[in-house]
Amino acid sequence: MSDDAIPPTIEWRDGRIVMIDQRRLPGELVMLWIENLDELCTAITSLAIRGAPALGVAGAMGIALAAATGIPLEDAARRLIATRPTAVNLAWAVRLAVAAPDPLVEAQRLVTEDIERNRRIGTHGAALLPNSARVYTHCNAGGLACAGYGTAVGVIRAAHEQGMTPSVWVGETRPVLQGARLTAWELTRLRIPATLVADVMAGSLMAAGEVDCVIVGADRVAANGDVANKVGTYTLAVLARHHGVPFYVAAPTSTIDLACPDGATIPIERRGAEEVTGLAGRRIAPEGMLVDNRAFDVTPAALVTALITEDGAVDPASLASS
Amino acid sequence: MSDDAIPPTIEWRDGRIVMIDQRRLPGELVMLWIENLDELCTAITSLAIRGAPALGVAGAMGIALAAATGIPLEDAARRLIATRPTAVNLAWAVRLAVAAPDPLVEAQRLVTEDIERNRRIGTHGAALLPNSARVYTHCNAGGLACAGYGTAVGVIRAAHEQGMTPSVWVGETRPVLQGARLTAWELTRLRIPATLVADVMAGSLMAAGEVDCVIVGADRVAANGDVANKVGTYTLAVLARHHGVPFYVAAPTSTIDLACPDGATIPIERRGAEEVTGLAGRRIAPEGMLVDNRAFDVTPAALVTALITEDGAVDPASLASS
Repeated sequence: MSDDAIPPTIEWRDGRIVMIDQRRLPGELVMLWIENLDELCTAITSLAIRGAPALGVAGAMGIALAAATGIPLEDAARRLIATRPTAVNLAWAVRLAVAAPDPLVEAQRLVTEDIERNRRIGTHGAALLPNSARVYTHCNAGGLACAGYGTAVGVIRAAHEQGMTPSVWVGETRPVLQGARLTAWELTRLRIPATLVADVMAGSLMAAGEVDCVIVGADRVAANGDVANKVGTYTLAVLARHHGVPFYVAAPTSTIDLACPDGATIPIERRGAEEVTGLAGRRIAPEGMLVDNRAFDVTPAALVTALITEDGAVDPASLASS
Repeated sequence: MSDDAIPPTIEWRDGRIVMIDQRRLPGELVMLWIENLDELCTAITSLAIRGAPALGVAGAMGIALAAATGIPLEDAARRLIATRPTAVNLAWAVRLAVAAPDPLVEAQRLVTEDIERNRRIGTHGAALLPNSARVYTHCNAGGLACAGYGTAVGVIRAAHEQGMTPSVWVGETRPVLQGARLTAWELTRLRIPATLVADVMAGSLMAAGEVDCVIVGADRVAANGDVANKVGTYTLAVLARHHGVPFYVAAPTSTIDLACPDGATIPIERRGAEEVTGLAGRRIAPEGMLVDNRAFDVTPAALVTALITEDGAVDPASLASS
């Protein structure tokens, strides 16, 4: 149940950033050392680190790295924010670090705060689950997506720590397989019972009554409660509604972007075709095949049963009036 | 538009069965020669040939092979039918071949008839499409799934041949990737515009109004119109209903099994974990991970706008009363 089996997702050590290289999981647990801004930007765009809260920490540490290496902070901020457009936590944390007296102190405060927030999200979320809940989750909203502990996975961990015996359906999450590679790996290390499924099986599982709730993370929540998250989240929300299954989004309040009035205004990153035409380095589609690879989708607030933040669980549609 | 660019899925030549080895597409177009029943059963279970109508032809040719090699036909029939439990066409065609005076003549009649039926399905289906229809399809219900031409893809081909300029969203269809590997390959060879997407993108596309209809094939249609097809079909049907998008199933009448009163009585094949945890020898999930790999799911008749057979398009719910 402890984090012992999983090293910190990202930390500052000896003037450098050290992070788990998530591209190499689950095969190898390898740490990646980052010495300059170029390396950090490459690590972010190539998904060595990903997940909205983890990107926030990476962005703040990137500002600390810029300060240490004499790069103008505004230049560094622009470059970092441009790496991934959808997750709002990245820009939020970069701005905090630029404005802080000491970017490194701010980055390290964010690490501590993120883990503390996630534990509170976990406690609030676990209170919504029945005993022995069969939870479906998508992508990775675990400790690897944060400074630690996790948001959606944090809710499952909290339930597990309380002895509520949850079990997890892990959607593999094509095209980058964050579910199969990362969430499956975390849950295995945490000894939480989990079963991996192809994403296409979610409908069958719900139709068979084998899912008690869906819990996912978020990359950005608009002011009206619409949720941008890993592509496939919206399909799960529609399925959950069709089957009367509660659909929860677990995310810190830093994921809420009041500057975005609704989901339609959230920028959706489109990524390269090679993520879809290849799998684990093997080509799986004909040469020259056109591909549409939107990395995120938007789930309307009306399909979200509750948004679970460190402050508690709320109807996301209520954000608009608060 | 002709079949020139695509060899026959399966045929009888010089006392042997020769088929496209679909395991090796799209990388290589390689023919597999089958000399005995053992080889044929292995080819079927390992998905060298798949697709309900194609399995029917393979089963009938398997009986011809048994007759030619002195194996009791009833033994051969039992072995063949046991290879894949969900597609009803396999058992149907095996039974026809066993009862026929000459199993080989019967198998070759099935080939001719299958292609002719698919062309009629295509004509009936194309009449339902708007011009420049953006069709979403799942798995492979193309010529490779049949003796030739295809069912769901046959509808798209017919529209294309009539100059209706359809375009196709090809869902990759994890875990075995029949969409990415087979449908993408067929459409490329037929020069029909197509875009490959991860299965998780279907919801986004429908929400954005970029899908005019869904067309899939079927492995078995119950007497009440419920449809068993590749896992993920049901999710597409729920999404289509949520977005008011027509959802069509294209299949020959041989796919209708009046002995199955409803979808709950259709056997659903469960396949090995390695289809989900790996690809071509590359491991993409942690060692020891539990997997649930149901190869098919059931879509209730109420979610199917029309069942398109060689006799025309009908409301599948009307089957029960006919």
